[in-house]
Amino acid sequence: MWVAATKQKPLYAPEESIPDIPFNFNGYGAAGNVRGSLVYAHYGSEKDFAFLANAGVNVSGTIVLARYGQSFRANIAQRAEEQGALGLLLFSDPADYAPVGPDFVYPHSYFMPPSAAPLGTTKLVDGDPLTPFYPATESAFRIPEEEASIPKIPVQPISYSDAFDLLSEMSGAAAPETWQGDLNMTYRLGPGFREADWTVNLEVNNQNIMTTTYNVIGVLQGREEPDRYVMLGNHLDAWLLGAVDPSSGTAAMLELSRVFLQLHNETGWRPRRSLVFCGWGAEEYGLVGSVEWTEQFAKQLSDRAVAYLNVDMAIEGNYTLRTKSVPILTEAVYESAKRIPNPNPEEVEAGRTTVYDTWAHRRPDPVQPNLPLMQLVGTGSDYKGLQHNIGVPCMDTRYTHDNNTLGDPLYHTVYETFALVDEIYDRGFKYHSAVTALWGDLAIKLAESKYREFFADAVVNFNKAVTLFDKVLNGLDQNNPLAVRQVNDQLMLVERSFIDPQGLPGRSDYNHVITAPSKNNAYGGTAFAGLVDTLTEIEEASENDKKSLWRTFAQHLAAVTHFINTAAKVLSDDLW
Amino acid sequence: MWVAATKQKPLYAPEESIPDIPFNFNGYGAAGNVRGSLVYAHYGSEKDFAFLANAGVNVSGTIVLARYGQSFRANIAQRAEEQGALGLLLFSDPADYAPVGPDFVYPHSYFMPPSAAPLGTTKLVDGDPLTPFYPATESAFRIPEEEASIPKIPVQPISYSDAFDLLSEMSGAAAPETWQGDLNMTYRLGPGFREADWTVNLEVNNQNIMTTTYNVIGVLQGREEPDRYVMLGNHLDAWLLGAVDPSSGTAAMLELSRVFLQLHNETGWRPRRSLVFCGWGAEEYGLVGSVEWTEQFAKQLSDRAVAYLNVDMAIEGNYTLRTKSVPILTEAVYESAKRIPNPNPEEVEAGRTTVYDTWAHRRPDPVQPNLPLMQLVGTGSDYKGLQHNIGVPCMDTRYTHDNNTLGDPLYHTVYETFALVDEIYDRGFKYHSAVTALWGDLAIKLAESKYREFFADAVVNFNKAVTLFDKVLNGLDQNNPLAVRQVNDQLMLVERSFIDPQGLPGRSDYNHVITAPSKNNAYGGTAFAGLVDTLTEIEEASENDKKSLWRTFAQHLAAVTHFINTAAKVLSDDLW
Ligand SMILES: [Ca+2]
Ligand SMILES: [Ca+2]
Ligand SMILES: [Zn+2]
Ligand SMILES: [Zn+2]
Ligand SMILES: [Zn+2]
Ligand SMILES: [Zn+2]
Repeated sequence: MWVAATKQKPLYAPEESIPDIPFNFNGYGAAGNVRGSLVYAHYGSEKDFAFLANAGVNVSGTIVLARYGQSFRANIAQRAEEQGALGLLLFSDPADYAPVGPDFVYPHSYFMPPSAAPLGTTKLVDGDPLTPFYPATESAFRIPEEEASIPKIPVQPISYSDAFDLLSEMSGAAAPETWQGDLNMTYRLGPGFREADWTVNLEVNNQNIMTTTYNVIGVLQGREEPDRYVMLGNHLDAWLLGAVDPSSGTAAMLELSRVFLQLHNETGWRPRRSLVFCGWGAEEYGLVGSVEWTEQFAKQLSDRAVAYLNVDMAIEGNYTLRTKSVPILTEAVYESAKRIPNPNPEEVEAGRTTVYDTWAHRRPDPVQPNLPLMQLVGTGSDYKGLQHNIGVPCMDTRYTHDNNTLGDPLYHTVYETFALVDEIYDRGFKYHSAVTALWGDLAIKLAESKYREFFADAVVNFNKAVTLFDKVLNGLDQNNPLAVRQVNDQLMLVERSFIDPQGLPGRSDYNHVITAPSKNNAYGGTAFAGLVDTLTEIEEASENDKKSLWRTFAQHLAAVTHFINTAAKVLSDDLW
Repeated sequence: MWVAATKQKPLYAPEESIPDIPFNFNGYGAAGNVRGSLVYAHYGSEKDFAFLANAGVNVSGTIVLARYGQSFRANIAQRAEEQGALGLLLFSDPADYAPVGPDFVYPHSYFMPPSAAPLGTTKLVDGDPLTPFYPATESAFRIPEEEASIPKIPVQPISYSDAFDLLSEMSGAAAPETWQGDLNMTYRLGPGFREADWTVNLEVNNQNIMTTTYNVIGVLQGREEPDRYVMLGNHLDAWLLGAVDPSSGTAAMLELSRVFLQLHNETGWRPRRSLVFCGWGAEEYGLVGSVEWTEQFAKQLSDRAVAYLNVDMAIEGNYTLRTKSVPILTEAVYESAKRIPNPNPEEVEAGRTTVYDTWAHRRPDPVQPNLPLMQLVGTGSDYKGLQHNIGVPCMDTRYTHDNNTLGDPLYHTVYETFALVDEIYDRGFKYHSAVTALWGDLAIKLAESKYREFFADAVVNFNKAVTLFDKVLNGLDQNNPLAVRQVNDQLMLVERSFIDPQGLPGRSDYNHVITAPSKNNAYGGTAFAGLVDTLTEIEEASENDKKSLWRTFAQHLAAVTHFINTAAKVLSDDLW
């Protein structure tokens, strides 16, 4: 009997061997002990499962082995469950996470070694799974656990070393060329092994328990508008050692709060608006701390939050800045990035003296190649509730790797060690420092500036409204505090305008009609996901279903149109 | 063949005979030509239909004759349709609308004459029936008419003279004592007539057409906070002559806007905040103008509307003031009422010199008998969207009759003439004038006062919060405009706090967890309708259904608790 590893082998840093490092597991995966033949399902996308069905491979009653990295793992688990699989094994193929070959992996580089297995949540709905839409307070109503949006089947991450042992014994047709990975053998679809009586036995002993998590919130009260909040956030929990995720961000947050406190203590300085520092609990279990907090304070936040600036990891590489934001904040982020000196000496030598320059050079916007790429915020971190349910303008920034891997290769593995950060990613912590400076610069801009500069040309879509608004601004008596607050209130309302209380089609947990992520991949940010997803469904639907889907599309298009019109109108004292 | 009257007979005022007075009809009642035996269903409540079933009277396939006045007519139509009735006839019993007998009716009094038949809508959902939740703009998505919440059966109002002719020929068991009315015969349940081959043939030729209605909105821009709106509203449409409903209110609105404009023209005066005068279209067809407008400007109104003061009819009697308001406005209404001289000389002689005094004397609060009764706003007029979906504090006021009838007896009949107002209800228009003065006084108070006075002790429930808030107010520099606006923003957020974006249990068109009207009677205002209605359902449910209803109750109770906690917290610059 061959047995897979239950922990990740210590390779370099002493803390990799501390005894209470958890076993490899996926959060919220069901407990269970199942046995079946093995099927290889590529990345476990809708298309991949459809291919298997066409190829005559029945997934029902089998254990699925899928590659991690293209879909959010909770989506893969959901699909496997829908197909009737008994269990799901996830592995990270070296093609995606160790592209330079087996000799150039951790601890010699940041690429994934054979023994690595990333942990992670498999819950689809964000926040506490027992209290959808309402805060998990003491008096909250909790739905029974069997109704919660969590997998009913066991899910388990394994290393690519263990995946090799399984895959290389498999029978069945060879998988298509595009399904082959970098493990040195032919990937086969299955079901089952060359030895006909071999099966896979998957035993998962997860226990879902009710426990308390803590958000740690600090406030530096504003001097003139204490009830307007510029929020900064990072999460406090990690799957294992977490030196990158989240501790690189936590370090930045601690440093920023230290600096602001020192400034306040030494000079009495306070920003015009309040700065709110948020350390979130249980982000890794599906944004629990931040979503519950957002649910609890939804009214106040909706009325008062100016912006939320998230840094989950400060670095996950040193190649270029990568930022996600809503359009209304883009210009402000660009401006800040132009003020931060480039931490990469080679880039400076090439004439790119700021963080902005390298970003624009290495990751240009494909549509406007003279600008750096700004992505929309998806749902991968603690901005979810604030951006997608409340309409607070959100941003998430970090230094990242190049595009040769599907993500940070050591993400959520035991090899996310201080040594990885200190010796490989960021000798001298210059990239950390650059991200921290950018974050602070932006926060001060939003908290200090009297008006406008921070919500600049973002509203270019609403040309007429903006022209009128510019006139108002130019005629505005900047020393009239009421008039200034009035204009700022109107700017705050722009992002709120995109919130549809009815939710997106079939998705009551997403309200922002522009920035919601696509249904099919909860991590990504797609503009107008309600429209795009419906179009995708129409393509794949039977003739019978197309009609009602077109109706959904038309209905949602009308809603989107209405909210865009609203956004154009709120930049005025009048209603219309 | 006996045939019912299709119009109401002219009795007194010349305009009752003008040729384009419409036929008697109910808005949105289905067109149809149906024939069946007649069943008498009392007020057509759930209980009444249950009684008929128990008495062995099968309503299915019959035409129902029900009394108007205890349930909203749309609720009666819905119940009749659910029971399988082919059509519904509505009449107003003299017991409810002409209690002093046949000699003392219009034009000798305001009581209902035998030939009167009130028109009215039978649509249940408010606003344009084709565009639920979204504004009926040009680009709106419209659902097919067959999916709209309107009756599928013909509904028709008839006079009590015609009802007598039908009822007095009916067969079947005698109706119970409590079901008997003031028509001089024994009311029988049916089905059918003493002459076994007699049937009722109901022919309704309504046509539902798409047409345009207009809201007429005027603004007197505020001098300091033009983006904070104190709104006044009244509707412009009437079923027939409408001298009471809405023209008594329209007269008040026109007078107020004339006075404010004159004041502005002569002195340059502007209120601190903007005054918005709203003349609503198509209120009688189910609040179409105001609900669509609220849907269109929901974001701005949610952010900026301070209060909405509705006067549908200024008078429907001269007995006492009757006011509906949210708790947060109660104190302000009391204060204004104390400033308005009593238009009733007999009352003044009895020492009750103000409108408030008579109100407190003639309609005391049963719980606090030293205070006049303040009711919650239901859904009977144009405050619905603002109060129940957005959480803008709303009020509705008028002079009303005593409690000897179920409503204004001539409401929605052709006898709502100028003569009724001028010669019977309000000789010299003193009651009109009192309501107009009260309305204006309150509007000015809300638009002018720097802060607080207008949202006074209403928040007594939140003792701790209010104590803290009082401290803030006392320490507040009243000349610091930012601080003043900040405090006012917090007060505005109190009412918004009660808005649950998820809607009440099973009622996505009601969001206010405290003031929503009960499901069973859309006109009334019941506190905590989501809880109360669920309890009612539990009482009537089978043992099997009770469990899930108790769950609904617990779930909604938790939500209500959360929103009340929120309301207590928003009176602070901080989040918690
Ligand atoms: Ca929750
Ligand atoms: Ca509508
Ligand atoms: Zn993270
Ligand atoms: Zn993570
Ligand atoms: Zn009316
Ligand atoms: Zn009316």
